[in-house]
Amino acid sequence: MARGQGPAAQAGRADTVADTRFFTRHGPFSGEQLAEAAGGEFVPAREGHADGRTYSGIGPLQSAAPSEVSFLDNRRYAALLDATKAGLVIVAPAFAKRVPPGSAAIVSPTPYLAWSRVARMFHPARNARPGIHTMAVIGADSVIDPSCEIGPFAVIGDGVEIGAGTIIGSHAVIGDGVRIGQDCRIGAQVVVSHATLGDRVILFPGAKIGQDGFGFAVGPAGFESVPQLGHVVLEHDVEIGANSTIDRGSVQDTVIGAGSRLDNLVQIGHNTRLGKCCIVVSQAGISGSTELGDYVTVAAQAGLIGHIKIGTKARIGAQCGVMSDVEAGADVIGSPAMPFREFFRNVATLRRLSKKPESGNAGEAGAEEK
Amino acid sequence: MARGQGPAAQAGRADTVADTRFFTRHGPFSGEQLAEAAGGEFVPAREGHADGRTYSGIGPLQSAAPSEVSFLDNRRYAALLDATKAGLVIVAPAFAKRVPPGSAAIVSPTPYLAWSRVARMFHPARNARPGIHTMAVIGADSVIDPSCEIGPFAVIGDGVEIGAGTIIGSHAVIGDGVRIGQDCRIGAQVVVSHATLGDRVILFPGAKIGQDGFGFAVGPAGFESVPQLGHVVLEHDVEIGANSTIDRGSVQDTVIGAGSRLDNLVQIGHNTRLGKCCIVVSQAGISGSTELGDYVTVAAQAGLIGHIKIGTKARIGAQCGVMSDVEAGADVIGSPAMPFREFFRNVATLRRLSKKPESGNAGEAGAEEK
Amino acid sequence: MARGQGPAAQAGRADTVADTRFFTRHGPFSGEQLAEAAGGEFVPAREGHADGRTYSGIGPLQSAAPSEVSFLDNRRYAALLDATKAGLVIVAPAFAKRVPPGSAAIVSPTPYLAWSRVARMFHPARNARPGIHTMAVIGADSVIDPSCEIGPFAVIGDGVEIGAGTIIGSHAVIGDGVRIGQDCRIGAQVVVSHATLGDRVILFPGAKIGQDGFGFAVGPAGFESVPQLGHVVLEHDVEIGANSTIDRGSVQDTVIGAGSRLDNLVQIGHNTRLGKCCIVVSQAGISGSTELGDYVTVAAQAGLIGHIKIGTKARIGAQCGVMSDVEAGADVIGSPAMPFREFFRNVATLRRLSKKPESGNAGEAGAEEK
Repeated sequence: MARGQGPAAQAGRADTVADTRFFTRHGPFSGEQLAEAAGGEFVPAREGHADGRTYSGIGPLQSAAPSEVSFLDNRRYAALLDATKAGLVIVAPAFAKRVPPGSAAIVSPTPYLAWSRVARMFHPARNARPGIHTMAVIGADSVIDPSCEIGPFAVIGDGVEIGAGTIIGSHAVIGDGVRIGQDCRIGAQVVVSHATLGDRVILFPGAKIGQDGFGFAVGPAGFESVPQLGHVVLEHDVEIGANSTIDRGSVQDTVIGAGSRLDNLVQIGHNTRLGKCCIVVSQAGISGSTELGDYVTVAAQAGLIGHIKIGTKARIGAQCGVMSDVEAGADVIGSPAMPFREFFRNVATLRRLSKKPESGNAGEAGAEEK
Repeated sequence: MARGQGPAAQAGRADTVADTRFFTRHGPFSGEQLAEAAGGEFVPAREGHADGRTYSGIGPLQSAAPSEVSFLDNRRYAALLDATKAGLVIVAPAFAKRVPPGSAAIVSPTPYLAWSRVARMFHPARNARPGIHTMAVIGADSVIDPSCEIGPFAVIGDGVEIGAGTIIGSHAVIGDGVRIGQDCRIGAQVVVSHATLGDRVILFPGAKIGQDGFGFAVGPAGFESVPQLGHVVLEHDVEIGANSTIDRGSVQDTVIGAGSRLDNLVQIGHNTRLGKCCIVVSQAGISGSTELGDYVTVAAQAGLIGHIKIGTKARIGAQCGVMSDVEAGADVIGSPAMPFREFFRNVATLRRLSKKPESGNAGEAGAEEK
Repeated sequence: MARGQGPAAQAGRADTVADTRFFTRHGPFSGEQLAEAAGGEFVPAREGHADGRTYSGIGPLQSAAPSEVSFLDNRRYAALLDATKAGLVIVAPAFAKRVPPGSAAIVSPTPYLAWSRVARMFHPARNARPGIHTMAVIGADSVIDPSCEIGPFAVIGDGVEIGAGTIIGSHAVIGDGVRIGQDCRIGAQVVVSHATLGDRVILFPGAKIGQDGFGFAVGPAGFESVPQLGHVVLEHDVEIGANSTIDRGSVQDTVIGAGSRLDNLVQIGHNTRLGKCCIVVSQAGISGSTELGDYVTVAAQAGLIGHIKIGTKARIGAQCGVMSDVEAGADVIGSPAMPFREFFRNVATLRRLSKKPESGNAGEAGAEEK
């Protein structure tokens, strides 16, 4: 068979949105229903038989049909709004007048939030299908709410507690003594040991929670492991990305604060503490015993050394290397970390200095030798 | 038991190549057969009873036997060629005369490509062993070609389609509605959901494909997830490394173009698109909605922010931090990314400027204050 | 249900140490017993009924009870020593006099090592529970010592050998021909293929060992895979972190030397060799065919290109980008790598030069144009 571009390239493929192969669809809903869910103001279309119209799904501005809802969140894509055929468009007040006459609108000061709620009305997260798969292994003395769904090949240890409505994915391993709250989603091939999870915690596939921290002492014949005797606490509404790793504490706990979200391939060392609603983007790592306040953002591939403190609402830039405390509200980037302004000033300075030799290399070199 | 170096150090261990514990071996083959497969020219040995000789395996220059094939691809190792006892050596034209008189040669302008084909003749990838393991779980309405091999503890969802000759490894999880082409190799503990795979796609163990992208809006009580309603398309001949993660799109698709190869621990964000034959080396990450043209190389640990475009054949260096578009054919490195020449000029400039204080600190400081 | 901080925040939670939900506890032990295990000197308390006292567990200085053992390793926390109620404290000689009168002491020149041994006396690693789970799949001609524990849903290939006392976790996959030594701990969802493991090797959950290296040649119709025909050797006492990946060699072996410890999410390329007792911290990556001597430390998120040599006891700093050989004993950091002193001198130089414009921009610019 000849090599080609394959499925995506075949037949001028358009993007699929909310394909029924993968997503169930609720609805249809009226514009007023959607506006109420979105927390925005419904504005009927100025033209056409828009009254009483209902909407059956969502789509991007450039391809949404009159029966679909779309949104504009980024000024860059405003031209798409002018040409859209979407029957209902979610926009910020500044764009309300630019909505085409045939489209109704939901006007919201937070259109992306409104959009997320409308999209979730059509495509809500699925509920647990109560029951324990016949191919799951359940330990002794475990208390699993009858409303839970336990997938095939899951392994639940001894003395585990799992709250109502929680889904445990296939091949997930829940170690002895672990407690999991209500309405959690534990993905396929997740391992959780030595941990306590709040409610509505979501662990994406392959996340590994609660293994030994990286702790050892130098002995006469090599390294000797230091027992890691703490545990991991994931508070309510925490989400952990695919294949991320969170080590348990050594003599205290590793804690991820309520509402915090960690992306894929993130590493959290032992005894580390994140406050509420922190964001840690993919491939970032936080070393042991470091403490983050609330609402801290750590961008992709950033690294924080151990035993430092990051203040509330600080923002750590992508690939930043943080070697010391960061004040609340600070914006830092670079390796070692420095304020954003300083970093970009450094970049400009170095570029300027490096260009000199081209216009007057000999003279400058002479000046150096004085 | 006393601590020692263990198995590798015992008994002055030599490297094992193509150990029969792990690899099956085909052959023997004549030099002409191998040259034809390699796409190179067969040159008999100048001395000895080389005619009619066949070869039974491969080995490195320094240890290959007269019954084995070896190759030289890197000028640095040319001295090994002079001393080799390999019966057949694959070399570029420039080294043809340096092949020892007792060795035959395959001369090829692309000796590494020729080598890969010869090695694959002796050690081809194994074929599927048709059948579904009794310990696999298969969903409703799935269409699995009878020639497929489905390993133990695999979980296949509802409405899945799997093409001829494909191997699904143990513990792999294939979500509802996923389509997988022919002759694919899905490794152990891979999770694939919300995805369409072309033919000959290889997913190494632990790869996670199709989970929710990292998308949320800020609500009054914390973050609210934005439904991720796109899917993932892996075109023909795509390979994804161990424990890598590819998120599905939000309102469009995440697409990895035909023939692209991603190494281990790579992260691809939602809506990201890679063209044909891109290379992404280990621990690199590409953020959401970024688009790569064809033949783009992203070296190890590089990071690309979201919503940018990388032109065809651009090369992104190791640990590079790309914050803006990169032109076709450009070579960039550094964080922030800059042309290779500029980066190394900057490094040299800074080294020069930092050395000054040692030879004339006072004078220079005075000059600054003028 | 209202959103809150969840389990950790409820009721002014104190940290849990060695919670019996997760950890078994041995003991009690006398101070002399513990001192002997620790390799330190026992010093009875100066006051109180300390003679004949035994200790039942461990705890941090600030919360340990008179029946518990604690330790001081970091000068920063010396104030906690003054106030501790721990019955027994492990300290360096310099702090022996500062131990409160009611506390006994173990005085050791290596208090952290002493601590690790005391903690392990109370909480030893659990032994294998001999037996093969009924839901495990075992291949033909495998030799598994009867003292081994094989967990549920494990898959053991053909011709595998596993030594006495080894634990194979749930869902682990051990490929055909793999040899594993004694007293190893193979975590849940580990995949090992094409490999030989020594004794006491620990693989944390999700580690992937032995898959194909990232090797391909450019062919006329796209990339062509180069068969990867080496294997992976993990010598005695090697530990590999969660979700880390180690590729097998192409024409030689990938070797991790005895006693080396790799953290989570580490990538090791094909043919790479680490000497004895190397440390590789999380998210670091070492490219193919690079060789490390003994006792090399690679800090978090560092990256080493392929085909270079790192000398014995060299230390590679966090986020370092190593593009060329590093001498034995050298300390390097930065990208590209340079000696620590040079790196921080560069940082200071650039900061100084960038500040200039604020105090005399016009004059300096004029100087440039001369």
